[in-house]
Amino acid sequence: MIEIGIVGGTGYTGVELLRLLAQHPQASVRLITSRTEAGVRVGEMFPSLRGLGRLSDLSFSDPAASDLKACHVVFFATPHGVAMSQARELVGAGVKIIDLAADFRLKDPALFERWYKMPHACPDLLAESAYGLPEMHRAAIAKARIVGNPGCYPTAIQLGFLPLVEAGIVDPAHLIADAKSGVSGAGRKAELGLLFCEASDNFKAYNVGGHRHHPEVVQGLNGFSKDPVTVVFTPHLVPMIRGIHATLYARLTDPTVDLQALFEKRYAAEPFVDVMPAGSHPETRSVRASNVCRIAVHRPQQGDIAVILAVEDNLVKGAAGQAIQNMNLMFGLPETTGLTGPPVLP
Amino acid sequence: MIEIGIVGGTGYTGVELLRLLAQHPQASVRLITSRTEAGVRVGEMFPSLRGLGRLSDLSFSDPAASDLKACHVVFFATPHGVAMSQARELVGAGVKIIDLAADFRLKDPALFERWYKMPHACPDLLAESAYGLPEMHRAAIAKARIVGNPGCYPTAIQLGFLPLVEAGIVDPAHLIADAKSGVSGAGRKAELGLLFCEASDNFKAYNVGGHRHHPEVVQGLNGFSKDPVTVVFTPHLVPMIRGIHATLYARLTDPTVDLQALFEKRYAAEPFVDVMPAGSHPETRSVRASNVCRIAVHRPQQGDIAVILAVEDNLVKGAAGQAIQNMNLMFGLPETTGLTGPPVLP
Amino acid sequence: MIEIGIVGGTGYTGVELLRLLAQHPQASVRLITSRTEAGVRVGEMFPSLRGLGRLSDLSFSDPAASDLKACHVVFFATPHGVAMSQARELVGAGVKIIDLAADFRLKDPALFERWYKMPHACPDLLAESAYGLPEMHRAAIAKARIVGNPGCYPTAIQLGFLPLVEAGIVDPAHLIADAKSGVSGAGRKAELGLLFCEASDNFKAYNVGGHRHHPEVVQGLNGFSKDPVTVVFTPHLVPMIRGIHATLYARLTDPTVDLQALFEKRYAAEPFVDVMPAGSHPETRSVRASNVCRIAVHRPQQGDIAVILAVEDNLVKGAAGQAIQNMNLMFGLPETTGLTGPPVLP
Amino acid sequence: MIEIGIVGGTGYTGVELLRLLAQHPQASVRLITSRTEAGVRVGEMFPSLRGLGRLSDLSFSDPAASDLKACHVVFFATPHGVAMSQARELVGAGVKIIDLAADFRLKDPALFERWYKMPHACPDLLAESAYGLPEMHRAAIAKARIVGNPGCYPTAIQLGFLPLVEAGIVDPAHLIADAKSGVSGAGRKAELGLLFCEASDNFKAYNVGGHRHHPEVVQGLNGFSKDPVTVVFTPHLVPMIRGIHATLYARLTDPTVDLQALFEKRYAAEPFVDVMPAGSHPETRSVRASNVCRIAVHRPQQGDIAVILAVEDNLVKGAAGQAIQNMNLMFGLPETTGLTGPPVLP
Repeated sequence: MIEIGIVGGTGYTGVELLRLLAQHPQASVRLITSRTEAGVRVGEMFPSLRGLGRLSDLSFSDPAASDLKACHVVFFATPHGVAMSQARELVGAGVKIIDLAADFRLKDPALFERWYKMPHACPDLLAESAYGLPEMHRAAIAKARIVGNPGCYPTAIQLGFLPLVEAGIVDPAHLIADAKSGVSGAGRKAELGLLFCEASDNFKAYNVGGHRHHPEVVQGLNGFSKDPVTVVFTPHLVPMIRGIHATLYARLTDPTVDLQALFEKRYAAEPFVDVMPAGSHPETRSVRASNVCRIAVHRPQQGDIAVILAVEDNLVKGAAGQAIQNMNLMFGLPETTGLTGPPVLP
Repeated sequence: MIEIGIVGGTGYTGVELLRLLAQHPQASVRLITSRTEAGVRVGEMFPSLRGLGRLSDLSFSDPAASDLKACHVVFFATPHGVAMSQARELVGAGVKIIDLAADFRLKDPALFERWYKMPHACPDLLAESAYGLPEMHRAAIAKARIVGNPGCYPTAIQLGFLPLVEAGIVDPAHLIADAKSGVSGAGRKAELGLLFCEASDNFKAYNVGGHRHHPEVVQGLNGFSKDPVTVVFTPHLVPMIRGIHATLYARLTDPTVDLQALFEKRYAAEPFVDVMPAGSHPETRSVRASNVCRIAVHRPQQGDIAVILAVEDNLVKGAAGQAIQNMNLMFGLPETTGLTGPPVLP
Repeated sequence: MIEIGIVGGTGYTGVELLRLLAQHPQASVRLITSRTEAGVRVGEMFPSLRGLGRLSDLSFSDPAASDLKACHVVFFATPHGVAMSQARELVGAGVKIIDLAADFRLKDPALFERWYKMPHACPDLLAESAYGLPEMHRAAIAKARIVGNPGCYPTAIQLGFLPLVEAGIVDPAHLIADAKSGVSGAGRKAELGLLFCEASDNFKAYNVGGHRHHPEVVQGLNGFSKDPVTVVFTPHLVPMIRGIHATLYARLTDPTVDLQALFEKRYAAEPFVDVMPAGSHPETRSVRASNVCRIAVHRPQQGDIAVILAVEDNLVKGAAGQAIQNMNLMFGLPETTGLTGPPVLP
Repeated sequence: MIEIGIVGGTGYTGVELLRLLAQHPQASVRLITSRTEAGVRVGEMFPSLRGLGRLSDLSFSDPAASDLKACHVVFFATPHGVAMSQARELVGAGVKIIDLAADFRLKDPALFERWYKMPHACPDLLAESAYGLPEMHRAAIAKARIVGNPGCYPTAIQLGFLPLVEAGIVDPAHLIADAKSGVSGAGRKAELGLLFCEASDNFKAYNVGGHRHHPEVVQGLNGFSKDPVTVVFTPHLVPMIRGIHATLYARLTDPTVDLQALFEKRYAAEPFVDVMPAGSHPETRSVRASNVCRIAVHRPQQGDIAVILAVEDNLVKGAAGQAIQNMNLMFGLPETTGLTGPPVLP
């Protein structure tokens, strides 16, 4: 049984970790910390988690008083900057780390500093860490002591562009990612813009001038592209709770390629990537509460622009589910362990 | 392994049965019928159910060509009138029946006829059938060949009123059930009133003059009340997908009773009824996708009116989940088998 | 042209006042204050109000630097406590006041203090002020210097119960108001519970133990009832932006009364109360963005309990629209001036 | 006073026409037809339109018995094919026609036939008709007897691309329109895909292979482009009632152009196009229930791809409001008459 610690478990990725781990047959949450909720029981904080036995009765503990070093693995569901400040001590004690924030996503510390406005606390650990997108870096993750779990947008966008970029059949300098996210992607924060009355019955783009997930996508795709990748990335806010829909556009340099076959072959062995039949339109709800990313491939009017549609649940494949998938890999478990619950629809 | 047949599996209770049964360790869907979708695979009809192995690849079969008698149990997720027309043949062949429609809910065939505008096809089988609310009729269900699965509203309303009526501490002649349902309670039907643009950003009561679930509630509570029960039942439509919230009002005849203790004691052994701490306000999302009914007990201003709040997921405890709970009972399995997935929140 | 000042115009009632006043032919917003947004133009703060000429270009001004005494009337769209602190100076200068908060709603200063946790700053002005529900207090409003604009719930609940209580045909000691509100009723505040991901796809009751609108309803109805009124009031939160639906229950003491006729007669001359045909189910969206309250009268199963359904837009008839209706009365204008825009549906 | 006839007034564009015309000072609805609702009063069919005097009491009339020739102008809010079948008789009688369907949108009858699967009934009238996008064809509309009101998507997409294409500063062969629509864009039809439980809490693309609004956009932009235009158009369904958000991508051939200035100059005199300040992100709710199209111009990372964001209310500027704007032009009224109500937010 893997003993798990969770730091900062009161946000949406935290409660989603708890929901998924409650069903994991070989892992057990040993402790969960929260500065503001120390002493409160999990089932009290999240009534949805009442009645689950030990997990419901577990109390949030004060970070200072929490013995994270007694865990086998620690998930950081915290703001940026927390994981890297504790990483050295934990890995020194033999504890593995999976950071759901951005501390271990960008390999270049300078790039991290530019986008997150803080110096990186441990560039050496950053260098050895793995980027936790199993479909791209499975072997490295399996061996890693530290995994930087990808952002929600980058997961869908990279999985959608990957086969095209890898095959070298598109112009990598003009990729366009028009992406739409449910509101939970912004976290559980008391901000005006996230209020029901601001986000409901509404649609808008945001951060068109620059979003923190942008360098992560570019870094990821560059690793699989012959020529440098440039991406225009436009995030939008959808009045729904969960779900990301990425609509991806790429100019084909070789229009003879069978795109459907290319994608099916690339992801044939992947348990969590579903290439849908030609002509499909994946819906975000078709992956709600599950770790699957569904992809459909289009080439409108047989023109020279490929349109890729990719959907995921931002809290699962885009966060907590992928973190558990990474944990499974790091501990030698079957990759799908604890992640087989079907999507909830309607 | 229990071999299951599902008749009419293309509605919301049908797809929810499939989602839940996909996780049931001791049951397997052998066949699923649909007149309109015969030949279509489950994963094609419901992309959320792709990738689940045998279940995804199972095709809907034409009812005429389906060997329901080879199953151990048949679920009817059909309109009213279908189950009773096939019941005699199936029970004759040793097949158990769980009807998610109304054919086996009202014990009085005349009452059935008045509300559902059709004669009852088999009053003798109706007489022997059990009403599938385990918290009220567990023993009868365990022995039954036919179970009439309760309506979604009646489940929450009866569980909320039961301890009061049973204890004889309220005026049974003036019970008020102000109930609110998510839109999926109306089923997957192409009707104008159920359109997104009609039901979204809106709230209304409906059928205030009379709703089919009304006689079912009265019949159920009468079985546990010394004096005859009268209920004013006002259903409302909430712009949400799943969930029922019943706000129940009863005039206390004995205001000295400790209501909280009464409810806690009544449901202490029930795995799927959660009596929340005094002062709680249960949210429908706290049971989303789970089989739990959460209840909170109030007595505003220490007056003589008790206010009971009860929430459930109308597709789970109000339909498919309760049906599986009944199946577990009928086949001697632990009652919670396959029903332990935590609610999905947010 | 009536010159208007608005104090605290950055909340939902503030922006709604601006939207409605932009269409008022005989009133003009002279100044609008906001501590936090001083210097920002209205059209900058609320892009929906761009392009409306002078109003769009008006800047929020610092309260300290704002000459409210130069206005004919000042609307307070502020938290409780602000209006009463400035009332004496303004009325002394001949300025009329309409407070959209609670400072001038409860006639008993002790009651105000108990519910709002602050002493009343000017009990004498409170005594002379009028309660701004025109359908109950039209004459007093027309003569008043200060009007306390009703809460959103109390408007619908009082309009629904009024004909019954006034006629003395119900048991006033056991009135039940099961009320449901859209999220904007809670204001534009950065609170966790109001987030899209907390309030969407969800339904719950809140404050069952006691809500600040409760004493206001009791006070209002007591003024029209022979015997003392007791109300059980249960507020609920609906995942919609605007709208209140009150479902009201009263035990009839005289079951021979023609309820439909009673309501139609009571409200025959009211421009903003619409008694719908017998058997109707008013929808909140049928009054979206308008000042109308629609009411339907039911008596289920011809029993002794009357069920009244009343809907309003909480930001219009429940706040800003009613405030303008009151202003029209106070300045001798036709009551419907500037309030004739039809509801927005869908 | 302009006497108006409306054919087919029971859909969303029909009820929106009624809402807007109720506020028009120089137009009056003389008759409104509906095959299915003949004899029903407007206020009965749409309770939101109760209490508006003559308009509320107007009854839908049978098309066969309706004297459309007595009107000055007839709006067709019908399915495709209806307007063209009655056009010759009406214009012969001196009645002007505004078709909100597609009969008079595509100038090439063969193209109409290919996309709408029916021959065009009157190619000569099609040839003389005007395409009702005033910002592109104002003079022609003012003189026209027949106006083909644009589709909802094409209005936002053309207004967004127009300044770029007109100026000849983008590659016209690779325009990308990633567009998102509220559900009312699909009309008031009892279809499964439009149900609340299918469209809510969900996001998807549809018709990626080809949408009927595609040829209309291409035709429109070709009229203002030196070189032929090719557009990849991806429509998506957003869980909101009203609103279109078009995210438009174009490769700049001249990256020295000041895009903000270009757009501001192009639309300086347009009463219904609002070019927002640089860096803005227009929200669909900022135009809810109004005839305004708001546009923001971006050039991410100062690269060679321009990103234009354009929002409109699909039922107003995308349908009924634009139709009234066209009517104003055709009858020599100020273009904004009856269209000045501010957007409804929140």
